[in-house]
Amino acid sequence: MNVRPIGVLRSCFKEKFGTPRQPHLAPGASATLTLDAAHVPEQSLAGLDGFSHVWLLSWFHLNTNKKPLPKVHPPRLQGGKVGLFASRSPHRPNPIGLSLARLEKIDGATLHLSGIDLVDGTPILDVKPYIPESDGAPKASAGWTSEAPFTPMAVRFTERADSDAAAAEARLGLSGLKELLRDLLGQDIRNPRDRAQSKDGVDLGFFLHDFEARFSVEGRVATVLRLETGTEMHRNPRRRA
Amino acid sequence: MNVRPIGVLRSCFKEKFGTPRQPHLAPGASATLTLDAAHVPEQSLAGLDGFSHVWLLSWFHLNTNKKPLPKVHPPRLQGGKVGLFASRSPHRPNPIGLSLARLEKIDGATLHLSGIDLVDGTPILDVKPYIPESDGAPKASAGWTSEAPFTPMAVRFTERADSDAAAAEARLGLSGLKELLRDLLGQDIRNPRDRAQSKDGVDLGFFLHDFEARFSVEGRVATVLRLETGTEMHRNPRRRA
Repeated sequence: MNVRPIGVLRSCFKEKFGTPRQPHLAPGASATLTLDAAHVPEQSLAGLDGFSHVWLLSWFHLNTNKKPLPKVHPPRLQGGKVGLFASRSPHRPNPIGLSLARLEKIDGATLHLSGIDLVDGTPILDVKPYIPESDGAPKASAGWTSEAPFTPMAVRFTERADSDAAAAEARLGLSGLKELLRDLLGQDIRNPRDRAQSKDGVDLGFFLHDFEARFSVEGRVATVLRLETGTEMHRNPRRRA
Repeated sequence: MNVRPIGVLRSCFKEKFGTPRQPHLAPGASATLTLDAAHVPEQSLAGLDGFSHVWLLSWFHLNTNKKPLPKVHPPRLQGGKVGLFASRSPHRPNPIGLSLARLEKIDGATLHLSGIDLVDGTPILDVKPYIPESDGAPKASAGWTSEAPFTPMAVRFTERADSDAAAAEARLGLSGLKELLRDLLGQDIRNPRDRAQSKDGVDLGFFLHDFEARFSVEGRVATVLRLETGTEMHRNPRRRA
């Protein structure tokens, strides 16, 4: 049983750090998917443009674990464990992701998507239309997730970050960048190890679009310090540690 | 990129004919999934029992086409075509199905499910909890599906079918069998070729639980004739034709 990507996602998220854990958390997160013309013809998309939302089935290509563990630590549970099938962890026997995305438009063989929780370079296995009558369960009970609500952190911007964001919006031809940063950092993108190891106020960074967003966290407040261009992702000290 | 089943579904549907096209159409359709203990430990399910609904990622193992076509004929469109990615057709570049099912209970390594649209023997690749806040899009637009509403057919039962259903419920230890048959046949399970080839009133059959449901269709009325036990699936004349 072999699978083969129908295309590779080009996402605003350039690394796992900073990529949201669920798709609804950052409506301003954008991506494009261009079908691999060699084996998936463009006509396969006919009629999809009438749908506002699509499912992306993806391959968790950045997993490094050899074998998934039976239990995982969802970030929301702050140390608590659940079975992997009670979670959306990427570390699964078959590393296939399921993300609901907003379909903004289709341009030839390219889908323009938003509300993405996938990192740049993610192989996409399938696109399916979201059909409200069979894909929605409005009265569903949400298990442990309803017992672990998350209150977003406050997110502040330095003056430097404000002007960097305005410059980035002009350069990239987009809007809503501060809202996107607020949505992302409000979720506390640090993993439990980061939180344990980083002292409050330490300078962290993640790559988004064409810049590195540098920020710090003190208590329940994240501060965006600056958006740097010209830094290289592999030189990020966090990843070398 | 290889996938491997975490288990094989045991479903009330014994063949493609009669299996509903979407999971919400037959709430009384039941199945069990037992994890393959050799590579997926039972603890992987811890905490899943708090969720009322789960996603099943499945492998469309009964596909016979060598290569998917770029356009498909959804039954609801009565001859009309849409791109395969605008449909939930099983004939896809990666033959992976996505079904929302109700989780009735978990018993050891076995999930008891209902509202199933998958045939017996379907390999399951993944189970994920349904998380309403990230998996639901209540205001989503439903594309061509909203322009092709389907009015269920009327379903009648002969006296023989009534008594066969009562006997089957007693034998199988279940209830709601007539409702299930009504939900299934109301959708007109015949494919367009059946409709074109079968004269009104011809006797058809499909296998469900441990019996063959024999029925006929005249106009927009389906009649359940009898529920036969002891017939063999491979001897079904429909499949030999």
